[in-house]
Amino acid sequence: LDYQHVQVPFEITLWIMLASLAKIGFHLYNKLPSVVPESCLLIFVGLIMGGIIYGLNDRSPPVMDSDIFFLYLLPPIVLDAGYFMPSRPFFENIGTILLYAVVGTIWNVFGIGFSLYGICQVKAFRLQDVSLLHNLLFGSLIAAVDPVAVLAVFEEIHVNEKLHILVFGESLLNDAVTVVLYKLFRSFCEMPTIKSTDVFAGVGKFFVVGLGGVLVGLSFGFTAAFTTRFTKDIRVIEPLFVFLYSYLSYLTAEMFHLSGIVAIISCAMGMKRYVEANISLKSHTTVKYFMKMWSSVSDTLIFIFLGVSTIGENHEWNWPYICFTVIFCLIWRALGVLVLTFFVNRFHVNTITSKDQFIIAYGGLRGAICFSLVFLLPDFHRKKLFIAATTVVILFTVFIQGMTIRPLVDLLAVKRKRESAPTVGEQIHIRFLDHLLAGIEDISGHWGQYYWKDKLEYFNSKYLQKILLREYDQPKSSIVLLYEKLERKHAMELAQAGQLGHGPAPPSFLSSDRTVITDQKLEDTLNPAVLDNIQEILARNLYRIRRTGPAYNRHTLPGDSEPTEQAKELLILRHKSL
Amino acid sequence: LDYQHVQVPFEITLWIMLASLAKIGFHLYNKLPSVVPESCLLIFVGLIMGGIIYGLNDRSPPVMDSDIFFLYLLPPIVLDAGYFMPSRPFFENIGTILLYAVVGTIWNVFGIGFSLYGICQVKAFRLQDVSLLHNLLFGSLIAAVDPVAVLAVFEEIHVNEKLHILVFGESLLNDAVTVVLYKLFRSFCEMPTIKSTDVFAGVGKFFVVGLGGVLVGLSFGFTAAFTTRFTKDIRVIEPLFVFLYSYLSYLTAEMFHLSGIVAIISCAMGMKRYVEANISLKSHTTVKYFMKMWSSVSDTLIFIFLGVSTIGENHEWNWPYICFTVIFCLIWRALGVLVLTFFVNRFHVNTITSKDQFIIAYGGLRGAICFSLVFLLPDFHRKKLFIAATTVVILFTVFIQGMTIRPLVDLLAVKRKRESAPTVGEQIHIRFLDHLLAGIEDISGHWGQYYWKDKLEYFNSKYLQKILLREYDQPKSSIVLLYEKLERKHAMELAQAGQLGHGPAPPSFLSSDRTVITDQKLEDTLNPAVLDNIQEILARNLYRIRRTGPAYNRHTLPGDSEPTEQAKELLILRHKSL
Repeated sequence: LDYQHVQVPFEITLWIMLASLAKIGFHLYNKLPSVVPESCLLIFVGLIMGGIIYGLNDRSPPVMDSDIFFLYLLPPIVLDAGYFMPSRPFFENIGTILLYAVVGTIWNVFGIGFSLYGICQVKAFRLQDVSLLHNLLFGSLIAAVDPVAVLAVFEEIHVNEKLHILVFGESLLNDAVTVVLYKLFRSFCEMPTIKSTDVFAGVGKFFVVGLGGVLVGLSFGFTAAFTTRFTKDIRVIEPLFVFLYSYLSYLTAEMFHLSGIVAIISCAMGMKRYVEANISLKSHTTVKYFMKMWSSVSDTLIFIFLGVSTIGENHEWNWPYICFTVIFCLIWRALGVLVLTFFVNRFHVNTITSKDQFIIAYGGLRGAICFSLVFLLPDFHRKKLFIAATTVVILFTVFIQGMTIRPLVDLLAVKRKRESAPTVGEQIHIRFLDHLLAGIEDISGHWGQYYWKDKLEYFNSKYLQKILLREYDQPKSSIVLLYEKLERKHAMELAQAGQLGHGPAPPSFLSSDRTVITDQKLEDTLNPAVLDNIQEILARNLYRIRRTGPAYNRHTLPGDSEPTEQAKELLILRHKSL
Repeated sequence: LDYQHVQVPFEITLWIMLASLAKIGFHLYNKLPSVVPESCLLIFVGLIMGGIIYGLNDRSPPVMDSDIFFLYLLPPIVLDAGYFMPSRPFFENIGTILLYAVVGTIWNVFGIGFSLYGICQVKAFRLQDVSLLHNLLFGSLIAAVDPVAVLAVFEEIHVNEKLHILVFGESLLNDAVTVVLYKLFRSFCEMPTIKSTDVFAGVGKFFVVGLGGVLVGLSFGFTAAFTTRFTKDIRVIEPLFVFLYSYLSYLTAEMFHLSGIVAIISCAMGMKRYVEANISLKSHTTVKYFMKMWSSVSDTLIFIFLGVSTIGENHEWNWPYICFTVIFCLIWRALGVLVLTFFVNRFHVNTITSKDQFIIAYGGLRGAICFSLVFLLPDFHRKKLFIAATTVVILFTVFIQGMTIRPLVDLLAVKRKRESAPTVGEQIHIRFLDHLLAGIEDISGHWGQYYWKDKLEYFNSKYLQKILLREYDQPKSSIVLLYEKLERKHAMELAQAGQLGHGPAPPSFLSSDRTVITDQKLEDTLNPAVLDNIQEILARNLYRIRRTGPAYNRHTLPGDSEPTEQAKELLILRHKSL
């Protein structure tokens, strides 16, 4: 027996296997996952395993390594999140998200830090040796909402899209702030004296870390898109590039102390539309499938490790400090959301309701990022207290808040995600309004959201697509794509039923067999009758139009062969309006 | 800049990226890969990179780590090979393959070892300090044909299926022999005296290592199939199990000093048919795609590393030893093939022609396995000589033999792989003959190949399928599956053309558009006219038969509801014949 030789890959494989089997186990009993979120169950499995290891070895089980977490477990989840990010609601609410992520996180860090310092001044609690700086450092790691925990819970409760993107977007983008504040306070802790220039340099770093991450991500994303232009003869390694470039963007950002999370998200969002157009259908299925699979495994491992790491003797228990940490985390977040939303609502027509505000505040779950950061702290005499407090906050938010948020959403009747995809009529109207608003903004000289979106779209179709796409074609409108998807689905059904081309298919038979087919998402969101209807209309009108002329697009009007002329015209109009 | 922190994943990602980009680069110029095999190009890239590293650092570039090779790079390639192994030709020729793999390898080991020892006795060569045992050890590592190198070359030259499986099967299965002989001689080298019992124990080990590998592989394979029964609710982690269990089988076999290659091949071949039936179509695409991708990357990395490792100061040059090694490798292999084929041909009707024999002998390429084994040798004063000789043999076989084998195949007019898939008529006849021969063997009491195949099929449909398949259904005959595939393809074409369900499709349009569609393999092997014809016939006759009664299967005759009765009947017949 030569265990030493295969130990590393063997144990990694076994851990992944355990995680996958645990996942299967939960889903065998359908009732369990509908009551308790999977993250709680996984932490519970971890706790049991940690207990077993502790009992057998009589020493603390190994703690989740921060390097493993940040280098191997976190990137797949963030990549998945970025790649499947609904870009429309994200960019529509980017202002609000940034406000929550930047101002909100700073608010929480200082709020929690200073109020915990206040608690430390009470003599009865015996905490007077914890300095203000240490409290602020602790605040900086405990304040950040965790994307992994948020995703795990919010994916199951199906709140409306705007609410989801507000909480989830915040949890992703606050990484830049957390990185800066955490590193700032950590270096302050090690400095003998702090000059005011250091503080100003820290503030400047926000922009460097965040925007640098975006820059690194986008450059890798576009390189990835450009690379997939040349993979026509070796389809089989296409999916690899999506993963390699995203991972490189993350690692590069981390190497330069930029925000890796922001980088990988920018990379994924930047490359998605070009890569999808360049690679084959099968490659695309593989990319999507593997991304989901990988993030699902990472996610599972993180929660199990979190449970395992909780057991042991790494903790120093101090009731007041721990209880007040939990309380302050709740209070400051609630206050922050209230104040920030007040300002947001003043400048927006589509306001955030008080119910939504409650869910935003309540959905501020903490997770494995805090946990990894607290273990990365330099050794000092109160580190174990911080570890204990962090563990309690994580378990409290994941278990108590995570398990009660679904009933609360039901109770408050928070607006849910709409069950069906937007109809074709709606899609056309949204598109029409976008163009209309862009035009109005253009004429009125107000360079708002729609104006920039339109400019970006123009830049994209004029330059980026030509460089990054292999077969630069008329961009297909989403309606045509929907139609093609429906047609493909219909064809597969006919094939399955063995009715293809041998006389017309009896409609009753078809609709009864509709459940067979693979495309799960469409299945979930549209019912058969609606589908049939859409398909009918599209088949009659749209497809033939597209085959005779190009699809409707603002920049390629049928009669308008020179897009530059149109651009000139716009320029003249704007100059006049100014 | 914090490079230390991300070094390991960063460098791994960069190496993979380099390998993928090199692959893209070769395929940009279509002429290059058709003349020079990819493996040669990759070694060349490696040589250049090694030269650059050597020039810059002024010390030998890092050598490919044997652990990395055996634990991470080899398994994906072997898994891919096992999973896509054509099982029919493999099992039809299993006797010949085993003869080549076991007897042939032993023949080569001792032939090369003893004749090199003879060379060492020549005083002028100054090699008298190399003992017989060391020569045999060297013979054991240089004798084995390398599956990675063989696959890389034979995939491009498209020889007939039997020839391919003979060379490739040998290269896979000789692993058990190589492992045993290599470890045996290595331990002999370290022993002060060798007893005769040790030699006998060594012979016994062959069976343990080989059959143990098969056993480990099959048990993991069946566990994998059983696990995928329960993944219906979490489709997304299905592909994972295929990879995890295969890898575990490899690691477990390696841990117990069994043959990992044999284990992973048994695992892949054992699980394939059950897993495919259990998992969803998209999961299956992902599995296939990812396996191909992974093995392709591993393959690329191995050849690049091989090139890089060649550069440096690890070599001791001795002209006679190195030249005679190359010559003996060629001679003993040629002799071995001639002698073994002589025996094989006496017992088979379907003989191996002399052209085929030449290609089998000439296709005995050496590769990275030899290279890793020679670096794993314990340190002794002539190790560098062995490394040099191994490197030369590998480069000679991969470059000279690899580049000339394609012209030779053309020149000799070796029978090629048939261009088209077997027609439906052929398939039906093959099937019919199988059953007929099984029946004849049964009645005549000669328990040959067909008899056992039939028994295995019976055992499979009676027990294994019930345990391992989620939805145990009538087994679909391959003809029905072909029909379904054609129908699916046809449907996709109709959808693409926008002709579905809106009036009958004009046939001219269809056939002109046929090239659009995705299923590459069918596309390559069948021409449109044949396809149309098959589909027409099947649509008229076969599908409806299947829908009214079960598909034809020897064990489930339409009128025969009790398979046990049939078994009894057979038993009586056989007893009578005996």
